Amino acid sequence: MKILFLVPVCLSLILSSCAQKPEPCSKTCCLLPFIPGHHLRVFEKFSYDAFGQNVRVLAAGKEGNQTFFVDRLLLFREGVSYEIHYHNQTCIKTALKEPFRHIGVPHDAHFLNQMVLGSSSLPGQGLLVNNWNGTVEETQEHYLLTFTALGCVPLYILDFTQKGELSVMTSFFDLVEGIEDPNVFIPPSFCDSVEVLPAKGVGARSFISLL
Amino acid sequence: MKILFLVPVCLSLILSSCAQKPEPCSKTCCLLPFIPGHHLRVFEKFSYDAFGQNVRVLAAGKEGNQTFFVDRLLLFREGVSYEIHYHNQTCIKTALKEPFRHIGVPHDAHFLNQMVLGSSSLPGQGLLVNNWNGTVEETQEHYLLTFTALGCVPLYILDFTQKGELSVMTSFFDLVEGIEDPNVFIPPSFCDSVEVLPAKGVGARSFISLL
Repeated sequence: MKILFLVPVCLSLILSSCAQKPEPCSKTCCLLPFIPGHHLRVFEKFSYDAFGQNVRVLAAGKEGNQTFFVDRLLLFREGVSYEIHYHNQTCIKTALKEPFRHIGVPHDAHFLNQMVLGSSSLPGQGLLVNNWNGTVEETQEHYLLTFTALGCVPLYILDFTQKGELSVMTSFFDLVEGIEDPNVFIPPSFCDSVEVLPAKGVGARSFISLL
Repeated sequence: MKILFLVPVCLSLILSSCAQKPEPCSKTCCLLPFIPGHHLRVFEKFSYDAFGQNVRVLAAGKEGNQTFFVDRLLLFREGVSYEIHYHNQTCIKTALKEPFRHIGVPHDAHFLNQMVLGSSSLPGQGLLVNNWNGTVEETQEHYLLTFTALGCVPLYILDFTQKGELSVMTSFFDLVEGIEDPNVFIPPSFCDSVEVLPAKGVGARSFISLL
């Protein structure tokens, strides 16, 4: 009887803790952004330190026939973003005005449902996930989030315009807890003497929109 | 030493078997189609019998402010599709010319990569998947498939136009092996006397595009 009572209580605690207490944490590896209507293919490897509020991202991709590679370091506490070019030892330093946002379920997100991606018939054929949606107060844009039910690991972030059209779909994969090399958050010495350019814009919802 | 040799052999067998021998099987439950630019929200519960080549689908959704409900039975061997309206005991019977296609990885699909959706740090936080892409010969449209590495369960089917724009993204969830009730493939008696209307079109790639 006690167990029957505890199960729904624990479930609701798990769900609410995912939405209301995104724990500081660090993650390494990969995301794929998809922008409908754009012939953009990008693979991004990132190091994400929620405690220090630092993000390093290496993005390689193709837009039309053009290939590109970007190495960016975002130090939110210091308010500086670095675009680093090792091949010619140059650096573009820009003021970063956007507040740091966790890759997590916002406090005011609305729990939609729980489902098994794939199949629940055999282990390894499916993944129990929670879906959440909500609206960004500043921009009135909508989002749909898919996080694992166990551990609240991000799987998908879908950003929609005010009109409800999909603007970006970001999928997360090969994530590991922790940062392989903490030095990725230290800018190279050839960036030291570079002047900081003014910020490009403010109000971005998440660091994903900065990349 | 034998084990070291066997691992890549088994891996390649698993990968090739997924692409080249989609086993006849049956599945029940759910898919969500997403069509960019359309304010269409649909939830589809389906019963899929690859051996008998039968599909039954219940689709409930909202397009703009209009809600709808569709109950459709597709009998590919008999070449008939039924739109069933239980509330007024009516039936629309249409000839079905499209060939039955498995929900599987086509023989000529190209293996892209293997990844863990989410995190591989702890069990239950990620899912090992294979990605495949290819082109439909008849239509020259492209597709991207995500199936579980274990058991080759469908997770995502992304269909693109010839120009590479996303036309439909279908996600599969809460799948279970087998058919709960085989009677779902038997049309109700009030459909017996209804005449068969001519087919609406031919050349659809998969049953998903029929729904």
